[in-house]
Amino acid sequence: MISFKNVELVKKANIYFDGNVTSRSFIDGNGESKSLGIMMPGTYNFGTQEAELMEILAGEVEVKLAGEDTWNTYTADTSFSVIANSNFDIKVKTITDYCCSYIK
Amino acid sequence: MISFKNVELVKKANIYFDGNVTSRSFIDGNGESKSLGIMMPGTYNFGTQEAELMEILAGEVEVKLAGEDTWNTYTADTSFSVIANSNFDIKVKTITDYCCSYIK
Repeated sequence: MISFKNVELVKKANIYFDGNVTSRSFIDGNGESKSLGIMMPGTYNFGTQEAELMEILAGEVEVKLAGEDTWNTYTADTSFSVIANSNFDIKVKTITDYCCSYIK
Repeated sequence: MISFKNVELVKKANIYFDGNVTSRSFIDGNGESKSLGIMMPGTYNFGTQEAELMEILAGEVEVKLAGEDTWNTYTADTSFSVIANSNFDIKVKTITDYCCSYIK
């Protein structure tokens, strides 16, 4: 079972879209900000402040980055990156477990 | 912002009831097993193996322990305990953020 060691884990959840997207923020052992989250099926738009690496742990999503015309599909053990101060559309096809890393 | 320090956090989510209840397992700095979770509105029954302390961080639930006739209401900053090898019925009235501690 893969785990993050030596983590600082925020107690309170982040709740978005009426709870259809929720996440837990933490700082990993290297001092990097990350979150582990769940997205229920639906279509969402997320803005970024920092650049993000979104790793799909389970589930299936289609993603269209700002300024692009193409939807790309991501499933377990695939990931996509989003630049800072941007946004992306995401269609969650099945309940999706993800890990987001915020890149300074 | 309250956080748990020096935690080992499991990467993969626990997903129950078609994703209406999800949680993240971790071991806190004292070596105690806990999980942080989200329950969407609905009615569920949970079994326990170890005894549990369920702390409600946000939301509202009604709980009926096995062998009892009474539903009790819990909201933010309240908690209830469940004995080992038992079960409880829970009606989640609004999306609920919780912390569960497993008692050895």
